[in-house]
Amino acid sequence: MTKTVDFYFDFGSPAAYLAYTQLPRLAGETGATVVMKPILLGGVFQASGNRPPASVPLKGSYLFRDMSRFARRYGVPLNMNPFFPIITTTLMRMDLGLHLRNDPSLKHFRDTVFQAIWVDERNLNDPAIVGAVLTEAGFDPAALLALASEQSIKDELKTVTLAAVERGVFGAPTFFVGDEMFWGQDRLDFVRDALTN
Amino acid sequence: MTKTVDFYFDFGSPAAYLAYTQLPRLAGETGATVVMKPILLGGVFQASGNRPPASVPLKGSYLFRDMSRFARRYGVPLNMNPFFPIITTTLMRMDLGLHLRNDPSLKHFRDTVFQAIWVDERNLNDPAIVGAVLTEAGFDPAALLALASEQSIKDELKTVTLAAVERGVFGAPTFFVGDEMFWGQDRLDFVRDALTN
Repeated sequence: MTKTVDFYFDFGSPAAYLAYTQLPRLAGETGATVVMKPILLGGVFQASGNRPPASVPLKGSYLFRDMSRFARRYGVPLNMNPFFPIITTTLMRMDLGLHLRNDPSLKHFRDTVFQAIWVDERNLNDPAIVGAVLTEAGFDPAALLALASEQSIKDELKTVTLAAVERGVFGAPTFFVGDEMFWGQDRLDFVRDALTN
Repeated sequence: MTKTVDFYFDFGSPAAYLAYTQLPRLAGETGATVVMKPILLGGVFQASGNRPPASVPLKGSYLFRDMSRFARRYGVPLNMNPFFPIITTTLMRMDLGLHLRNDPSLKHFRDTVFQAIWVDERNLNDPAIVGAVLTEAGFDPAALLALASEQSIKDELKTVTLAAVERGVFGAPTFFVGDEMFWGQDRLDFVRDALTN
């Protein structure tokens, strides 16, 4: 039976971006199926009592240096987004909406959004720039916005976010292999071990 | 010139204990000198605006599982202390006092305290048990308590703790190689790279 790994993410997390860049290698090395789990990190913080790391100034500035070290190790680009934090509610609703209707463009959507925020430093807090980024990538922004505005999608994002916290999630990215939880892009080697042992 | 790595620690941190167990190997592999820097983690949290990880319940329970995975990887014992959190003010003052007078028993003192908390699960919140642990290890508890009660030692622990925060420290363990800061026992490989490149 093929093993699976659940990957909880929010586009607004640079650590989730870093992990996302490593998922193809993880799948390739382990043969595992990665199950993508969009959640709203702000909702996770609220429900778990956690806070964004950057709410501690020394931690925020350190963590970006730390993630830059991992980006170098992985050989992937990473730029601090000058508009951080990006409010990702609409983007995560779009993602979940595409997921729920099994839209084949979903992977391209994810690549586009992660790249816009964490490589191209685009200001995705500005709806006009979100529209421009999506148009450049070949999407129809109005259609995606309509999708994200559906009440059922809004409700479902709340539901899956609270379900993640119920399962133990307090930050992003978070991996599950069966019942075993791994928090952080820096735990990929433990995830790999769990998938191969 | 021999490279040095500064190691900021508090006995109350299981992550600091895990890193402590790996320092001989780090020094052996890199030829670096480890400079031990006792600080009071509670003071670091207060000055930096950080909070103990276990103040988020889901994070607290996860982090111990996470550290147990590292303990297995390192091949060292680790037990959750049932009396956690241990208030380490007196213990850190004893450590700093021994350090300031260049006492040759300092390494044995550190081994004793880390082991009592993170292997033997002793309740070092109880002064009587602190006394018993120190006596068992061949120390004179009354003499150490007198040392820890010196006003100059109390003041110095505050000074070095605030100096650590000035330098960027917001948690423990924290390493410095020159100006480069590394937070967490899980960054030992980056510390090793910084010492060998």
